[in-house]
Amino acid sequence: MSSNPTGSQAGLKGVVAGRTAICTVGEDGDNLHYRGYSIYDLTEKACFEEVAHLLIWGTLPNKQQLKNYQNKLKSLRGIPPALANCLEKMPGSAHPMDVLRTTCSLLGVLEPEVEGKRAEDIADRLLAIFPSALLYWYHYHQNGHKIEVNIAAETTAAHFLTLLHGPRIRQHSDLAEMMEKTLDISLILYAEHEFNASTFAARVCTGTKSDFYSAVTAAIGTLRGPLHGGANEAAMYLISQFNSVEEAQTRIKEMLEKKELIMGFGHRVYKKCDPRSDVIKAQSKILAEFSGDKTIYPVSEKIESMMWEEKKLFPNLDFYSASAYHFCGIPTFMFTPLFVMSRITGWAAHIIEQRKDNKLIRPTAEYIGPSARPLTDISVR
Amino acid sequence: MSSNPTGSQAGLKGVVAGRTAICTVGEDGDNLHYRGYSIYDLTEKACFEEVAHLLIWGTLPNKQQLKNYQNKLKSLRGIPPALANCLEKMPGSAHPMDVLRTTCSLLGVLEPEVEGKRAEDIADRLLAIFPSALLYWYHYHQNGHKIEVNIAAETTAAHFLTLLHGPRIRQHSDLAEMMEKTLDISLILYAEHEFNASTFAARVCTGTKSDFYSAVTAAIGTLRGPLHGGANEAAMYLISQFNSVEEAQTRIKEMLEKKELIMGFGHRVYKKCDPRSDVIKAQSKILAEFSGDKTIYPVSEKIESMMWEEKKLFPNLDFYSASAYHFCGIPTFMFTPLFVMSRITGWAAHIIEQRKDNKLIRPTAEYIGPSARPLTDISVR
Ligand SMILES: CC(C)(COP(=O)(O)OP(=O)(O)OC[C@H]1O[C@@H](n2cnc3c(N)ncnc32)[C@H](O)[C@@H]1OP(=O)(O)O)[C@@H](O)C(=O)NCCC(=O)NCCS
Ligand SMILES: CC(C)(COP(=O)(O)OP(=O)(O)OC[C@H]1O[C@@H](n2cnc3c(N)ncnc32)[C@H](O)[C@@H]1OP(=O)(O)O)[C@@H](O)C(=O)NCCC(=O)NCCS
Repeated sequence: MSSNPTGSQAGLKGVVAGRTAICTVGEDGDNLHYRGYSIYDLTEKACFEEVAHLLIWGTLPNKQQLKNYQNKLKSLRGIPPALANCLEKMPGSAHPMDVLRTTCSLLGVLEPEVEGKRAEDIADRLLAIFPSALLYWYHYHQNGHKIEVNIAAETTAAHFLTLLHGPRIRQHSDLAEMMEKTLDISLILYAEHEFNASTFAARVCTGTKSDFYSAVTAAIGTLRGPLHGGANEAAMYLISQFNSVEEAQTRIKEMLEKKELIMGFGHRVYKKCDPRSDVIKAQSKILAEFSGDKTIYPVSEKIESMMWEEKKLFPNLDFYSASAYHFCGIPTFMFTPLFVMSRITGWAAHIIEQRKDNKLIRPTAEYIGPSARPLTDISVR
Repeated sequence: MSSNPTGSQAGLKGVVAGRTAICTVGEDGDNLHYRGYSIYDLTEKACFEEVAHLLIWGTLPNKQQLKNYQNKLKSLRGIPPALANCLEKMPGSAHPMDVLRTTCSLLGVLEPEVEGKRAEDIADRLLAIFPSALLYWYHYHQNGHKIEVNIAAETTAAHFLTLLHGPRIRQHSDLAEMMEKTLDISLILYAEHEFNASTFAARVCTGTKSDFYSAVTAAIGTLRGPLHGGANEAAMYLISQFNSVEEAQTRIKEMLEKKELIMGFGHRVYKKCDPRSDVIKAQSKILAEFSGDKTIYPVSEKIESMMWEEKKLFPNLDFYSASAYHFCGIPTFMFTPLFVMSRITGWAAHIIEQRKDNKLIRPTAEYIGPSARPLTDISVR
């Protein structure tokens, strides 16, 4: 066992666990790139499906390719009967991340990764079906409707929002457009982030030469935790507790004194800022103004400034995603599932990359348990 | 980012990723202990439920505690209706590991880890229900029978074997006893193995503060791969190809020349031998003799000696587990699921341990992709 500078410190902080050509995460927070393209350029000039194509298939599509790709995704939205049946049998009170994790695992049973099937095609299928599955389950348990998931919406964002709000929302075209734009940008920002915990779990799984669905199922379960994807929901629950900026100020101060975690702040890799935060914050602001919000957004800004003053901690992507999603009329418990609907693209890229030059991922541990001891017979214990 | 002796070598070979008090895996292969107790002592003097109690609950039970524990496990074997329905809807041709992965994930929906529920109790539930779920699914698709899984069998091994073979097998009492003993020993040997890939996946998942089922689901998916748990099945497919020792000799030689992997050999940590191999080999030998086998066991021994002579590689636990299970009349595709039915105990111990002193597990990567590049407009791509 070779020595290691992090010693037995858990967490693998700063430990290089492999090579990747997919993404750079700069500590300074000024250079998040997907395959060399800056997220600032991507959110400004590209749509989420272009980014999905870049991550899953390796290249940016041209106009015709994008059209074909969007059509392909549209054709992959249908829910197989055994999955529909299972979604109906899950209680309406289930945790939506458990619903998506089980959806992915069951799809691995129903449409397995057999010889000759391309991982990229499975990724596209999952990308297309996750919104269908979540909202089918949701509406079925809300009001007993078995909704039609095969709708004409062009984009993932529009697919999700139309299934959620129904086609009526589209009549308020300004708002609908703004929401779609916000969700599209958010999906781009959430798409990929190097060896984050869920992606790393997917790579550990893939390292044993397991199948694609197993790796994505592992990733969904890992993203679910509040220290990772679950933070966007946790941030919303926090923010929505406060009825005023003053109340937020008092309570956050108390929480910091008690050394409580403020969800949506801090990061394992970034040290100065999260470059994604300002992009989603701008969207949150636009929607706050449009909706006449006088609380959620000002409270969020107050928390941001306090965290910086008191702890030199900055908001990560999850913090302003919370209010942005909220202004899109998305129920809080769907925030982390939206992260899944985006990050499936990054997970896919990493699973495919891990397979290309695979090595079992198997570290060791420092043993701190009891030394060898004799086994006393059960009759005299 | 601190430097790391393994540099960007993938695989985290020899990298200490945390502390554990559960298990020591010695490179020399002479000291596998669970919480200080040698596996030689445990397989000789204890039954699997004692080991399960040791791993999940932290202590060896006395006689009364063991009785209570076995009774508790017996009471947890039932399949909830929504899970039964889902098992019926999965095709009979499904991969059994996909069936177990989905069973675990769906159980996380149906019996979620709510506040106040003990992780240890969920572990016991999974330990008790995995044989039920697998064999319910199996018999339903084999012959349409919805079998009764709540049977009186005292042990996990007896529960599994009775569900598999039906109660008739117990009339051949010598053979039934030998099979039960073999399976019990095998479950002890498979129970725990430090930071192996599936356990590590479970810890990465737990590191985000996700729930117990997510971590076990991730572990099952990771165990599925042929470089990990899947190796016992792969070893059996290999061994059963050969009709004679001579044929095995010729083919293995060819495979080694072509640098093909021989499944069931080699190990990431052990350098000289796998201490578990001789224990399960002894069981395989007893059953081979009893059943009058003239091929499987001699072929296995031939492969073992060749691998040592040609490559200085030794059999790991999976190699002789294959023939041992085979002699127990277990279909090959149930070998890796048996690994799950045992390792759930070790996974549980690690999830509980990870939670006690949690830290997000999030390494970094060496970037080898394209440097920053401008985004060309889609109209001119
Ligand atoms: C993201 C996160 C898990 C990174 O963890 P990490 O790299 O292990 O860093 P640590 O938890 O050791 O944090 C370092 C210090 O900052 C503090 N800190 C970090 N994030 C904090 C937060 N959100 N609120 C309050 N304090 C925080 C820690 O308590 C710790 O203080 P200490 O040195 O006095 O113990 C951590 O910042 C966190 O839990 N954030 C909240 C959850 C979240 O937003 N997750 C989404 C990440 S994109
Ligand atoms: C267990 C295993 C994944 C460990 O992997 P690892 O620590 O990354 O070790 P490597 O794969 O780098 O093996 C080192 C060398 O031994 C060779 N080797 C290892 N296991 C081998 C096997 N089962 N058959 C043939 N050659 C093997 C490798 O090809 C490699 O040779 P090289 O140096 O010429 O490239 C590996 O031994 C293996 O794939 N075994 C077969 C699957 C198996 O039985 N898994 C169950 C483990 S309990």
